[in-house]
Parts: sequence; C-alpha cells; structure tokens
Amino acid sequence: MPPKRVIGIDAGGTKLLGGVVDEHLVVHHRVHRRWRGADRAETLRIVVDAVEEIRAAAPDALGVGFGIPSLVDSQRGTSVASVHLPLDDVPFRDLMAERLGLPVWLDNDVNAAVLAEHRHGAARGTSHAVMFALGTGIGGGLVLDGRLYRGATGAAGELGHTVVDIHGPRCPCGGCGCLEVLASGTAIGIAGTEAARAAPRSVLGQRLEADGAVGGSFVTELAHAGDELALEAVAEVGRRLGAGLVSILNILDPEVAVIGGGAVAAGDLLLGPAREVLVAQGLGPPRMRVVPAHFGDESGMLGAALLALDGSA
Amino acid sequence: MPPKRVIGIDAGGTKLLGGVVDEHLVVHHRVHRRWRGADRAETLRIVVDAVEEIRAAAPDALGVGFGIPSLVDSQRGTSVASVHLPLDDVPFRDLMAERLGLPVWLDNDVNAAVLAEHRHGAARGTSHAVMFALGTGIGGGLVLDGRLYRGATGAAGELGHTVVDIHGPRCPCGGCGCLEVLASGTAIGIAGTEAARAAPRSVLGQRLEADGAVGGSFVTELAHAGDELALEAVAEVGRRLGAGLVSILNILDPEVAVIGGGAVAAGDLLLGPAREVLVAQGLGPPRMRVVPAHFGDESGMLGAALLALDGSA
Repeated sequence: MPPKRVIGIDAGGTKLLGGVVDEHLVVHHRVHRRWRGADRAETLRIVVDAVEEIRAAAPDALGVGFGIPSLVDSQRGTSVASVHLPLDDVPFRDLMAERLGLPVWLDNDVNAAVLAEHRHGAARGTSHAVMFALGTGIGGGLVLDGRLYRGATGAAGELGHTVVDIHGPRCPCGGCGCLEVLASGTAIGIAGTEAARAAPRSVLGQRLEADGAVGGSFVTELAHAGDELALEAVAEVGRRLGAGLVSILNILDPEVAVIGGGAVAAGDLLLGPAREVLVAQGLGPPRMRVVPAHFGDESGMLGAALLALDGSA
Repeated sequence: MPPKRVIGIDAGGTKLLGGVVDEHLVVHHRVHRRWRGADRAETLRIVVDAVEEIRAAAPDALGVGFGIPSLVDSQRGTSVASVHLPLDDVPFRDLMAERLGLPVWLDNDVNAAVLAEHRHGAARGTSHAVMFALGTGIGGGLVLDGRLYRGATGAAGELGHTVVDIHGPRCPCGGCGCLEVLASGTAIGIAGTEAARAAPRSVLGQRLEADGAVGGSFVTELAHAGDELALEAVAEVGRRLGAGLVSILNILDPEVAVIGGGAVAAGDLLLGPAREVLVAQGLGPPRMRVVPAHFGDESGMLGAALLALDGSA
C-alpha cells in the first residue's frame, strides 16, 4: 500500500512554501510563492493556486494542513489577526475547505513548526521545548508537558514580543524593545547598517554607499567570510537573543530552544553569543540546549502536513 | 466531626509565617519569626520551633506543608538551591519529617501561593494564571492548563528573573535588568532614594538625610498620602512591572496575573501604571486581569497548608 499523503502549506509573512508530504515525512512537488503587498483576496487566491498546483501532481492527497502567521482560533479554524498578512478575522479553514473541496486543518505557522521539530526534529524526545523563528519578524511556539501550549485565548507563544529592553526601539506591535525589533533577521541588517555608517570605508560601508541599504543576509554572508564588523553585528544580535533566552529559561525551564527561520543561516556566529549570555545569566545550572531547527526552513510546512496527517488518521 | 486540620508554613526570604489551617481554610494560632542572617542550622531550628509552637496548640494537626523560597525538587522533597535562605542541597522534607515526627509536604513558596490563589482566591475559576510575589525580591508561580507548571527541572516560574532591561542594573542572580531589581519592594525604596537625592528639600529628601535610607514601605505610605515624588517613584516601578506583564501576556496568554507580596500595599498606585503599560503594549485585545492577591500575605501559608490537606486526603 503506498504511504498516505497530504499537502502541507507554510504561509509565511513574505512567502509561501508548500509540498506533498507522506506519512514518513518525505516531501515531493515543492512550490514557492512570494506575495509582498498582496491584499486579502489576492493572498487567498495565491494560496488556492499553490495548493491546486501541488494537487495536480498528487491527486491522492487526503487533505491540506496550513500554518499561517496569525493568531489562530484553532477550534473555529479562523485567522483572528495577523500583523504580517491581510488575514484579520478570516474563517480560513472553512473558506479553504469550500474552495478546495478537501478537508483542511489550520494552526499558527510556528505552532506547526514546533510540532514538527518536537515530534521528529531537533526537540525530539523532550517534553518542554520552545521555538523561535527568526525572519523578517520573530515567531514563536511552545511545547509544554509534551503538548502544544496555546494559552487562554490561543495567543500564547509570541516569543518575538518578549520585552528585553524597556528603553528600546518601538516594535510594530506597539511594544518597546521586543525581541522582534532587536534579534530578527531584519535586526541583523539594521545592526550591519549601523556598523556601515560608523565605518564608511569598510566592506559594509561601501555596500551601504552603493546600495543604500545593508540586508541581514549580506551581513551574515560577510560574517561567515570573516569580516570583523559583520561578525560583531551578528554577535550583538545574538547577545540580545541570549537575553530573551534567559527570560524563557527562567519563566518556563524548557529542555531545548530550537532556532529556525532564515536568520539561523548565521549559525554559531549568532547562536554562540546567545548561548554565552544564557549560560552566564540564566538561573541555575546550564541545561537548556540552544540548537538550530533540524528541518531548516521546512519545519513549518512539515508541521502543517502533520496537522493534516493527524486529522485524517 | 471537627474539620481536618494541618499546619501551613510559609518560610519567606526574611520571615516565616505559619498557622493551623482547617479544610475550610480557616486559620488559627498564627506564628511569626524573623531570621535575617541565620545560618543553615539556625534557620532549620527556627522552622522546627515554629512548628512545635503551633502543634502545641493544635495536637490534632495531620501534617505540615511548607513553602520555601528555593528551587524545590518536589519528587524528592529537597531544597536544591536558594538565593534567600541557606538551604542549598538540603533534604528538607525528610529532615523535617524526622525532626517533627509528622508527614511533611514541600514546594516552592510562590508555587504554594499561586495554588491557594488559583483554587480559592483571586485566580479562582481560571485555567491559566500567573503570580508575582513582590517583596525583597520577586517570586513567581504558574498555573497552566489548570495545573501547577514546574518545567523540565522544577525551576519554572521564576518570573522575577524576566529580563526587561538588557542594559539595566545587575541582579544578584547574575542576570542584567531582571524584574527583581527593577520592580520589587526593594526597587520602590531605591526609586524613592533616587528621588530623595534629586530633591533634598522634599519629604523624601529629608527622610533620606535623617535616616540615611528610604525604604519601600515608607515611599508607599507617602504615596498613599499624596506626595508627588513618592507617587512618581511608585508609578515608575509599576511601569517596569507592566513591561514584565507584557512579556508574560505575549508568552503565556494567561487570564489573570495575581500580584502578592508586601509591595502590593501600594495597590492601584503600583498596579494602575502597570496595567496602562500592559494595555498599551501587550499584543491583542486587553484581556489579562491584573489583581492583588485575595489572601494578602497569607497566600503562601494557605497554599502550603493545601499541600498537606491534599496529601493527607
């Protein structure tokens, strides 16, 4: 009997990643979409179109799991609010089920990602795990006492909005000094830009002069190549992430913090300084591991597929 | 049949409060002890002496529950480490059971307090509640999905060591800018002292000149009497507490934050500014209530008694 297959869709803030996923977590027929600036109707159309493309290649798919960057009411299957996509107050599950004619499951994107990492990835075998997805912003997810933790209204796990600098810059969320503005991929770009301004003759400075901006991925590449200024910019962001990890350790006492999202491309250049702050400043003996996501940028898609595999079991 | 009775002991950082507690939570024969500076042997002797005094008045007590300001291994009944009392690595439960000849139950002091507030007090009827005990330091406790949450090693709920100012003052724990140094009762005294130095002719300034120090309870009294400088000192500490509440809301999405400990004597002068920051900066619609402890400074003692009442049921 061929393995059971479903479609997993990770609808991130700037891009969609989808694929057919079988019960052994093997992925086929990946599709990618970008949707910067799309309105609600266009966003939903892109999602439907992506699923239809995958389904054409895998007509046996039993259903679709979605991870979306929203506050999700998982009981009702609605997207309650999203700072990244125009999906406030959308009955996403029912709407997709109707348009696609397939069973649909829905959760927050990083809830899906931590589910995949907990069950089969970097947090496997633990009962208490947290996940940070460092990208344009910072998403989060929690597994506590072996289960996805959602809080009283389903809004728990917004680890990007842990306040680490009460006097820090404003966050788009309305807070001050949230991790999201200080330790995301975007923040690596900002730290690199500040370094570039201070040293106009440096490689970073020349890039800023030429392009008018320095992005997080360029700073990361340069750091991997050994550039001192870029290394320090990445390390500074890592130390801020470390302060957030100290809070999470002291509040939740998890076994592992899994770091995913695009910014984890910086690897130990980012995670090393974060771990140093955690060990120096966290309460009690060093014990919480800080590790990159096992599934890289596919944790969310695989977790979304797990929602559908579980649901159609 | 007379109600079942146990002894509850809240062994705090600077003082012990104990009493006989019946199954209706009525308290008799309260005892108080202070133990600033006592070594381990003396601390344990004070505890035993307090229990014996209560027991003389209530020989029917079925057992003793203790809340202690330590990282507690609740399985083994040991005090693993404490920053407030000389109780590192003490087999507290077995030691007390042997000296007292009574069954003994043990937990962290604020775990005990949140248990009492959740079951019978300010967090009654909720499934997700947090508690901050604002005193010399800040203790914390969590009820998640209806149960006391301990984390992977029993160290969860150290809400006083949530980092809110990455550039802030050192905390005795080794961290930087923890809530404990910025929003405890001690912090109210420090904020008042700073205000006193800046305005030597003020009431605060004159008290500083006369006594060489300004304590948190004096600043709080003065604020209740309407003194502008004292009001602002308490409000500033309240706003810092508010930043910590923003993190807790965004991470855990609880229904209620219960604020206990001596510093809650400031009431809405402290909690008002904290709530304002929470509402302005927390994610999503306002929903987490911030309320004073229903049992005042007796939550810990009552929770300790509940451990014993549950255990001897």
